[in-house]
Amino acid sequence: MRFDPFLATRTSRMGASAIREILKVVSAPGMVSLAGGIPAKESFPMEIMEELFSQVLRRYGSNAFQYDLTEGFPPLREALVPFLADRGIRVEAKQILVTTGSQGVLDGVAKILISPGDGIAVEAPTYLGAIQAFNPYEPRYVRLETDEEGVVPESLDEVLHKKNVKFVYLVPTFQNPTGKTLSVKRRMEIAQIICQHRALLVEDDPYSMLRYRGEPLPPIYTFAPENTVYISTLSKVFAPGLRIGFFLAPPPLDRWLVLAKQGVDLHTSTLNQALAAEYIGGGYLAKQVLKIVSLYAPRQEAMLKAMEKYFPSSFNWTKPEGGMFIWAEGPKELDLEQVYYRAIERKVAYVPGKFFFTEPGEGMSTMRLNFTCSDAPTLEKAIRTLGDVLAEAVVPKRKVHAV
Amino acid sequence: MRFDPFLATRTSRMGASAIREILKVVSAPGMVSLAGGIPAKESFPMEIMEELFSQVLRRYGSNAFQYDLTEGFPPLREALVPFLADRGIRVEAKQILVTTGSQGVLDGVAKILISPGDGIAVEAPTYLGAIQAFNPYEPRYVRLETDEEGVVPESLDEVLHKKNVKFVYLVPTFQNPTGKTLSVKRRMEIAQIICQHRALLVEDDPYSMLRYRGEPLPPIYTFAPENTVYISTLSKVFAPGLRIGFFLAPPPLDRWLVLAKQGVDLHTSTLNQALAAEYIGGGYLAKQVLKIVSLYAPRQEAMLKAMEKYFPSSFNWTKPEGGMFIWAEGPKELDLEQVYYRAIERKVAYVPGKFFFTEPGEGMSTMRLNFTCSDAPTLEKAIRTLGDVLAEAVVPKRKVHAV
Repeated sequence: MRFDPFLATRTSRMGASAIREILKVVSAPGMVSLAGGIPAKESFPMEIMEELFSQVLRRYGSNAFQYDLTEGFPPLREALVPFLADRGIRVEAKQILVTTGSQGVLDGVAKILISPGDGIAVEAPTYLGAIQAFNPYEPRYVRLETDEEGVVPESLDEVLHKKNVKFVYLVPTFQNPTGKTLSVKRRMEIAQIICQHRALLVEDDPYSMLRYRGEPLPPIYTFAPENTVYISTLSKVFAPGLRIGFFLAPPPLDRWLVLAKQGVDLHTSTLNQALAAEYIGGGYLAKQVLKIVSLYAPRQEAMLKAMEKYFPSSFNWTKPEGGMFIWAEGPKELDLEQVYYRAIERKVAYVPGKFFFTEPGEGMSTMRLNFTCSDAPTLEKAIRTLGDVLAEAVVPKRKVHAV
Repeated sequence: MRFDPFLATRTSRMGASAIREILKVVSAPGMVSLAGGIPAKESFPMEIMEELFSQVLRRYGSNAFQYDLTEGFPPLREALVPFLADRGIRVEAKQILVTTGSQGVLDGVAKILISPGDGIAVEAPTYLGAIQAFNPYEPRYVRLETDEEGVVPESLDEVLHKKNVKFVYLVPTFQNPTGKTLSVKRRMEIAQIICQHRALLVEDDPYSMLRYRGEPLPPIYTFAPENTVYISTLSKVFAPGLRIGFFLAPPPLDRWLVLAKQGVDLHTSTLNQALAAEYIGGGYLAKQVLKIVSLYAPRQEAMLKAMEKYFPSSFNWTKPEGGMFIWAEGPKELDLEQVYYRAIERKVAYVPGKFFFTEPGEGMSTMRLNFTCSDAPTLEKAIRTLGDVLAEAVVPKRKVHAV
């Protein structure tokens, strides 16, 4: 049977992503992957898992295995109140909604807001998972200019003036892929612009607890709570395999997002929410975050130092105060997707930056490097190898061929 | 801020379901709910949960908490091979795809197949959760006639001849809400009709293991594997709070469904899939199903006996050989939604059948009764009370008012 003619018009927008193809080799034996977007397994609190599970059984019994509310497991929502207060977000438990990873609410916001052709304003580059969530709803992407901090307020103002956009999607802290972080001043400016235009901001905040230097910054949500859908996750500070995300949304969007979720998965795993409730409520999370930071900080430092030492002088890169990624940019004429194939021959993988742009042809000379998944000596060695590959690549190839 | 103007055109199709409103009272103190669609908590294998969890930690360690493949956790997919073979379905592990509850793939099939206005053929009545999953993609529903067995083959043939439908959605075994089951003969006829028309069947099979009498029947999938998306779940034979569903789909729909899922939740909880792998692979499931059947069978028997005794003679109802529901129908003029309010005053709740129809005005004199969530004496008492309420209601009201 040929079922291709059965496909919906939207489905063409969901095409097998080239990034999946290109990254297939990443798990080959001997490969050092700087391509991952995942936490280190050593960051999971494995030593307390059995204890957490016993507590869940004692406290919730069979309720932890039963169907539950679409909005979320009440004890987790309660536990998230002080957790969010630590970020300057003061809300009640009933305002906090749980999703199956933060991916779940990215799907939800596009589902309830985007009719085909509606605009979504995004940073260039932006988080690939968000694009994958949004694409099936057939949006039109509007590009926001960025500088070393992230999105440029004037660009946002201009876009909201001229283009009709349903929402603005930003990752303001340790952005994926760039690691860039907006200053407080700029957060306030952006909040003001969003409110002035009576616009909607979708603020994705998965990384803010992974801070290795500097002071925590308030989410943009705190400056514009009535115009912001605030999204976060436990994937980077507990365990991503549990798929626990959560969000806040102004009414009536909160109710629509719950209805959308009901159609997609009824509710998020009760057991995993119960584990998360015990993890946060029992004070384990606070301690674990310190461990994670002390695991990742030296890795990031090792990568940055090695880049300083081994990368060609024609490269620039971000020096984020936290998160999981460093973003590097080579000379304009360099195609870092082509270079990727030479790097993997030498057993080092990264993500060519072009995949994080919504417009074809952009970001050809950029790359994303992850530092959370290998130890410092491995990272040092990988960056040295990668530095060699890049150095060879920046030698103008035309000359070589002309010989 | 008023965000209503921001909503997508599809969102109006996701309206807060009236059934949610009507069922809000179900958890009031003293209420006996025959309205539930959920397994009894006593059906969960609580006594082995700690052991399963320890096995998961021993066998998979931190991998059980890490991001995993969108397609599903490989050990679970392996464990499902013999599980499906027991139903007559012979497939390889790589063909089995995991979702976050079977709800996840209901969302997926509509997402990849339905453009606004496309037809979906459904039984009348049909499963409400499927309608909630399909609605956001703005389908047009085409009604299939049913008789005491379920869908009538001639009606299916006619619909596939005349109307343009993208897929046919059926629950062939112990259907929700009616409990009806298609005979083998009719399954084969339906498979033949589907294949003749080069159509696509979505076969939802959550209840077939809950069989209290009679012989197991082969899924329609076994007669038309190239034209069927086969969906099942562990929610009724393990624990629904773990949100583990799975499916088979002909290519290229399988690949598109994986891509759709990737945008929605990246993957289903690794931990819960690992628990399910140990539960099935360790031989626990087979034993637990026997326990569940011996828990539910007397409950169903008690309900059916009590209905015989206490329901007005003008009522008819199904006598399913398994599942979770009995479907009752009163005299045509009776409005069982109105009667519902009198029933809950007497502390018995059910679901008015009209909610399971896609066309307004249908099924007014029908009701769905669940027997899995209370013990036999409680069910007997509830049905007696309900019998009284129904008897009062079938007395022609005009006469009463005329006094």
